[in-house]
Formats: sequence, structure tokens, C-alpha cells
Amino acid sequence: MVPTLLIDEDKCRKNIRTMVSKAKENHVRLRPHFKTHQDYRIGEWFREEGVNVCTVSSLDMALYFASHGWKDITVAFPVNILEIGKINKLSSIVNLNILIEAPEVALFLKKHLRNPTGIYIKLDVGTHRTGINPANLGLIDQVVDILSSSGYEEWKGFLAHAGHSYQVQGDEAIEKVYHQAVHKMLELKIRYQELYPELNLSFGDTPTCSRVQDLSELDEIRPGNFVYYDLMQCAIGSCAIEQVAVCVECPVVAIHVEREEVVVYGGAVHLSKERMHWDPYGEIYGLVARSAENKWTTPLEGCYVARLSQEHGIVRIHHPILSRLRVGDTLKILPVHSCLTAHQLLNHITIV
Amino acid sequence: MVPTLLIDEDKCRKNIRTMVSKAKENHVRLRPHFKTHQDYRIGEWFREEGVNVCTVSSLDMALYFASHGWKDITVAFPVNILEIGKINKLSSIVNLNILIEAPEVALFLKKHLRNPTGIYIKLDVGTHRTGINPANLGLIDQVVDILSSSGYEEWKGFLAHAGHSYQVQGDEAIEKVYHQAVHKMLELKIRYQELYPELNLSFGDTPTCSRVQDLSELDEIRPGNFVYYDLMQCAIGSCAIEQVAVCVECPVVAIHVEREEVVVYGGAVHLSKERMHWDPYGEIYGLVARSAENKWTTPLEGCYVARLSQEHGIVRIHHPILSRLRVGDTLKILPVHSCLTAHQLLNHITIV
Repeated sequence: MVPTLLIDEDKCRKNIRTMVSKAKENHVRLRPHFKTHQDYRIGEWFREEGVNVCTVSSLDMALYFASHGWKDITVAFPVNILEIGKINKLSSIVNLNILIEAPEVALFLKKHLRNPTGIYIKLDVGTHRTGINPANLGLIDQVVDILSSSGYEEWKGFLAHAGHSYQVQGDEAIEKVYHQAVHKMLELKIRYQELYPELNLSFGDTPTCSRVQDLSELDEIRPGNFVYYDLMQCAIGSCAIEQVAVCVECPVVAIHVEREEVVVYGGAVHLSKERMHWDPYGEIYGLVARSAENKWTTPLEGCYVARLSQEHGIVRIHHPILSRLRVGDTLKILPVHSCLTAHQLLNHITIV
Repeated sequence: MVPTLLIDEDKCRKNIRTMVSKAKENHVRLRPHFKTHQDYRIGEWFREEGVNVCTVSSLDMALYFASHGWKDITVAFPVNILEIGKINKLSSIVNLNILIEAPEVALFLKKHLRNPTGIYIKLDVGTHRTGINPANLGLIDQVVDILSSSGYEEWKGFLAHAGHSYQVQGDEAIEKVYHQAVHKMLELKIRYQELYPELNLSFGDTPTCSRVQDLSELDEIRPGNFVYYDLMQCAIGSCAIEQVAVCVECPVVAIHVEREEVVVYGGAVHLSKERMHWDPYGEIYGLVARSAENKWTTPLEGCYVARLSQEHGIVRIHHPILSRLRVGDTLKILPVHSCLTAHQLLNHITIV
């Protein structure tokens, strides 16, 4: 065997059902972000819970899910005008929504769109990655004016991603991020809703959607990571470690008792080089579990992925566990960031 | 366009020719590590310079290059006994060399190998990743004894990777790593060469092979990264920035003048999350160049990739350059670690 992403179907379906229920209770549309799993089979598990719309992070990913029957897709990434051909192809086969944040892009789309296409204005609610500052009403007005003159663009509303929720820990801090962000969006909705009563607020990120109870002010949520969760989400407080629905099964290829380390086949090209601080270990690239029937245990005390090369993972393992390990055994590595790990292993997945 | 790895053929062929010449002058065999490029076309450029043997980091990579006519391949990764079927398949079609470091693996191979297979004993010459401590003569003797009893295994010699050369800077420090490592290997060669006169010393890593002038004590070198080089190698002192033969062309999708940042389509899934310290910027994920005919300039002063999400790259760009940029332009990102970046973009390559 080679390094393989194991997906715990029970946990994964439970994560899906929990988020579906929450969206229903709040009367908001769940448009899950599929960039985490990028797999049509996981898409089907959503469909079985009544979810028929999705979010992706690239036009190629949209084409993939379109080819698997998804008919309503938001590409939550600023329009890459160099891919206008793909945008027009997609909008000819699905209900496509795209994101803009600049008047010049709105003008470009007005000229080049060939089919009706939903447009969201991307807001920067505090992450400072992309989007218009919600206080910059002049710029927003300018974009709205372009969108509202006749053309193939249909202005859908405002979209934001509170990525800065990844920098906090615990419910109180997550709620603060949520309320500050959504407050800005609601103010804009009030400003525009008389002229545009169909205006949508689309908001997403796994920490807020997992932990904030009342999401009812929104129209749509777009969490993605929750389908698998990961160590980063555990540290933020989005989930318990038992909810993490993926791990990477890695063969042990070398045992170094004197260093209390083993080397696994499972490196940067399998796990990604995402790392994080984990007390008391310091910087880690993953935690380590053992097999339990065809699934895995909670992480082993004192064991973690300490270093990564291209194909090697160097795992700290303390003695009582170390002495039972043999070359040819496998370890189950819980990933720091499941979106990146799943991307690395799209062609090496086992559902358990 | 989507994020694309550009390979500067002139620079790449020059990097290859330089290493080929050096190996010839030193009368050592060059067995380049193909994990950096993983591309049969780059393999052909080596073949045109007379190189007919190569190194890879996985059995799947060996199968790929075998399918492109490579007949003599070393898999420089500790044997994963769970892939014994692939080992036997490979050894039926090519001259295969594999690595071991434990008696139990030697015994396993004795039992399961189906065809003649070259075996190197992996030494830990200071990196503390894999390999036997060269001072542990008892363990080495034990492995040698197993290998030298009759079977399909042919003991080829000792192999080491001085990965700790990545932690130093400048010729003097690189040479020190080299001499300390090779001294340990030579002592072992002397110990065993009466009984095993064909014993090989195989050694590799780009910093030492690039900068140490006299490599003649070795039998074989296995550098890989030099084919492309990257920012990490520049910082170590292995190469000049003009020798870096790859970059990632990324479309600009958002411009944030007030933050002196632009967002490119080009994130962790394209560049990898490898980062490094680069004075005076701090932690970076890449430097930024502009187009020059169909190639690229040296990096722009004051511009670097500051943050990465899954698909977004957040690039610091100062004002004079920023004011000329438009959405739909592209930036050329020089990667921190070309092996990982090339792996991410194996299906998106343009040779220029």
C-alpha cells in the first residue's frame, strides 16, 4: 500500500447531517464548499440529505461537479478573466454564480458574458484577503451600478468569508468574529434592499457555521471543511477530535528506537506542508492514531509528525508504543488541514 | 489560463550540462534524482547528455520512468515491504536498486525477491532522517551478512543523503557537511572493500554536489533539485537566482492598492505550503518576477508572496509596480522549493 486517505463514512455523514439540520433550523440555504473533498461520492452524501447546490474554488472544480450532475454552483474565488471561456461554458450548462470586487471586472463581464450568470459582490469582512471593504460605499455603488444595467449579469447579493475565524479559539471569540462580520453585511443589505429586494447574504467558514447557534440573519452559508474537520479545527474549537472524519494511512518504513522516531511513507506530497502549534509538542504536521477495526483510535499520547520531506514523514513515538511497532505496520495520521491533505490524495482514497 | 509551471529550457539544460560535466571531471557516475521534475521530457534532456541511470523517490515514479525507457533506476527511499509486488514487477523490467537499513527488511527481501535486485545500505551521515549510524558496525555487519548469503539481493554498497546541507549557508559550511559525511562513508568502504571490491559509495544532495569541487572519492552522485534550483538553494548558496529554471505563472485576480497587495490565482495547491525566511521580508512563499519575452526577470525588489490559502496567493507589491498592474495580468512566482511546487503542477507545465 501507498499513503491513502481514509474517509470514515459514518463520521462524515454525521458531520453533513449536523450542518444540514442546523441550516434547516435557521432557515438558511446550505451551499457547502466542495473544495475540501473534491469528490463526487461525498457530493452524493450531501445530495442524499437534500442538498442540491454547492460551492467550489475553481472553474475546473465546477466543471468536475457539473459533470456529476450538480446544476447550481458558486465559484467562491474572484473571477479570473483569463478563464472567461470556461465561465461561459459553465453558465451554458449550470446555474453559475461568480464573485467580483472591482468595477473593471464588472465591465469586462458585461462585455464578455454569453449566458445569464449570478454575480456576488465579495466583501472583506476582516480577513483582508479579497473583497471590498464594506465601508467603501462609493466603490460598492459603482459596482452595483454596472451590474444593474442590463446584461447577462444578475446581481445576487453580497458574499463574505470570515477567514479570520481561523485565528481565534473558542466559542466566544468565534461568535465575535461572526457578529462583527455579519453586522457589516446586514447594514449593506438594509442599504440596498429597497431597490433590490431579492438581495442575498452568503457567508461561510467552518468555525462560525459550526459554533454560532443563530445563523438566521443570513440567506446562505458555505462552510466546507466541516465535512472532514481536522486538527486546526479542533484547536479553534469548531469540533471535537472524534469528529475528524479523515486520516492518512502510512506504512512504517524505518524505526529508530534511539531517537524515539519512526519514518513513514507519507511526506509533504501526501499530507501537505501545513503545520500548526500543538501543545505540548510544538510545531506538528499531524497527530498519530492506530487502527481500530478498519477505522482509527483517538490520537496516541506523545506521538506526532515532527518533520516532513517530500515522501518521508518523521514521527515521534515514545517507547511503550515504539517497541510494539514493526516495519510494514501502518500508522494513521490525522491531518493538520484536511482540505490540503485531501487535495494531495484525490487519487488515493479509501472509504471505510 | 490557470497557474502553470514554466520551465526555462535553456536554464534547465544548462543546469544539467554543468552537473554532467562535473561528474565527468570527477569520474563519478551521475544518477540524477528525478523526484524534482517527475517528467519524462526533462528525463530526455538528461539522456541527450549521456545520462542513462536515474534515482526516484517512489516505486510508482520508478514505474513511470521505466515506461519511458529508463532501464537502471534506484529508488532512494527505505523499502516499503507492503509494495513487494511492485518491487518484483520493476526488477523484472529494469535494473532496480533499493535501500535498506534493518536486518528484518533484509530477511524479508531474501524471502520475497523474485529477481536480481541491487541493494544499498542506507547510512545516516548526520541528517537523522533514515539510515544506519555509520558507527554502528555491529548492525551494518548484521545486514551485510544477510545480504551476502545467496539470494536475489546484490549488495551494491552504501548510500547516503546529506540532507542537513539544507540547514547551512555558503561554500565553507557546505564543504564541511560534505567532508564529514563522506569521511564516514570512506571508512566503511575501507572496512569492507577487501571482501567486496565492487562496493559503491552513492551520495547526493544538491548543495554539496553543486558547490564541492572535488567529488572524486565517491562512485556516484544523486543530486536532484539542481535541475530547477529554487529560492531555498539560492539561500544555501547552491546557485545564483539566475539559475532558477522554473516559476509559476499566476493570473492577478484582485488588486488592493491600500494594502499594497494583489491576490493571484496560485495558492497552496499550486505552490505548496513550503516557506522560508528571506531578508528583509521575513517568511515568504515565493518571490515575484515579471515577464521578459516568454521568460521572466530577476525578482522584483520588495515583492513577495506573503500568504497562501488553498487557491489564493497574497502578494506584497509596492506602489510603483502596483500602479501598473491590472486584473488579468500575470505574475511569475519563483518557488521556495521547486520539488514540491513541480509536484503540485505536474499536469500544468509549459516549457519556454
